Amino acid sequence: MPGNFNPHLSVDCVVFGFNGHELKILLINRDAINEQSQSGKLKLPGDLIISGEMLNAAAQRILTEFTGLQDIYLKQFGIFDDPDRLAPYSDLEWLEARTGLKIERVVTIAYYSLVKIDLSIPTDLSIAYNARWYSCSSVPALIFDHNRIVEEGLNTLKRELLTEPLCFKLLPEKFTLNQLHRLYEAILGLSFDNRNFRKKIQRLPYIIPLNERQNGVSHKPALLHTFSYEKYLDLKKENTSFIL
Amino acid sequence: MPGNFNPHLSVDCVVFGFNGHELKILLINRDAINEQSQSGKLKLPGDLIISGEMLNAAAQRILTEFTGLQDIYLKQFGIFDDPDRLAPYSDLEWLEARTGLKIERVVTIAYYSLVKIDLSIPTDLSIAYNARWYSCSSVPALIFDHNRIVEEGLNTLKRELLTEPLCFKLLPEKFTLNQLHRLYEAILGLSFDNRNFRKKIQRLPYIIPLNERQNGVSHKPALLHTFSYEKYLDLKKENTSFIL
Repeated sequence: MPGNFNPHLSVDCVVFGFNGHELKILLINRDAINEQSQSGKLKLPGDLIISGEMLNAAAQRILTEFTGLQDIYLKQFGIFDDPDRLAPYSDLEWLEARTGLKIERVVTIAYYSLVKIDLSIPTDLSIAYNARWYSCSSVPALIFDHNRIVEEGLNTLKRELLTEPLCFKLLPEKFTLNQLHRLYEAILGLSFDNRNFRKKIQRLPYIIPLNERQNGVSHKPALLHTFSYEKYLDLKKENTSFIL
Repeated sequence: MPGNFNPHLSVDCVVFGFNGHELKILLINRDAINEQSQSGKLKLPGDLIISGEMLNAAAQRILTEFTGLQDIYLKQFGIFDDPDRLAPYSDLEWLEARTGLKIERVVTIAYYSLVKIDLSIPTDLSIAYNARWYSCSSVPALIFDHNRIVEEGLNTLKRELLTEPLCFKLLPEKFTLNQLHRLYEAILGLSFDNRNFRKKIQRLPYIIPLNERQNGVSHKPALLHTFSYEKYLDLKKENTSFIL
């Protein structure tokens, strides 16, 4: 563990992944599995920042440590500053024992991140802390206020999904309309009529049908599509100005 | 000055006001005017948070201290975390002398706020620290990274003005289309053709013409309008879903 932590500020990351069916979230065990004190408590990937470290850099560092990926999509979405957020006292004691620091109050800056599950690579830390994907629809009990952070992260993702082209960061470069449909349902927790959904999607100029079909599936292979960021920006330019 | 500060976290507020012609920003002198050490350096209203204080509460406290207003519109828009943001060393020394604390690194949480200039009331602190409205188009040199905070606050306001009904927080409840026009120009730093602007505004169902005209003006009194938040929400519901 790198020394010289700033005991007042931390970052925590809500890492979302999509496996084609379900929205997932990456959780770690709070203790390395070879430690005797292993309590089995789960938490978000996160840590105190290092003295002199910028917050965004800390979040990227932590994500790389736990996923092996570089340059991950990260969005700062909230500050969790309840002075009592490190309760109960036994969990605060665990943090002090782990860091060797006297901790009075930690304000945490929360990020959400979108990764393609199949790209993430086991790292030393992800193995040691038993990092695993859990279903977003039944998140287990986490330490501190991490369940609240997950909830607000998911609410932010739901909101931003409707105004930003975020879903494509969770899909393969070439995807089927069925995968897109399932992803929307998984994030929003709603179900959409398939025919209406396809009609709406097919009207969007930035979702491009390819001359290519799925490979190696047992059912009739579906047409693949791709997302054009350029065409998205063109459309956005026409629509930005809501009031004027 | 209330004791027991947290020397690691501060809030700073970019307070915007509109006087009917120009966008303004509230600045204070960094020293009370009765202190001998008065250096004349200007800064944003802001301060270290008090131990155990929530960030939003700290921002509201500081704004009330400097404007006399309660329940002001406040929006958290950024975290300024450069480890060297308190340079030069002489300004860091000033902060240590003022607070009596050893300061290593302060991360500041920035808010922007929208107030109607004519509502703000001089308070003990606003008089002591010589709080004044400055033109947003020529902000003087401020201490630390406060000029950068102002710039990012203004960029946030420009962006959010296009998607949120923020401008009405800067206008009187009954306003003329001319005032609205000037406000848009002042914030965006652009000039709009008057006839086109009026045409666009008159198409918006949430800007309601009243049966009432301006009073006590030398020119032909203009028709007054008001903003209907309910009608705005109705329209927004129809438009939220950009992708679906």
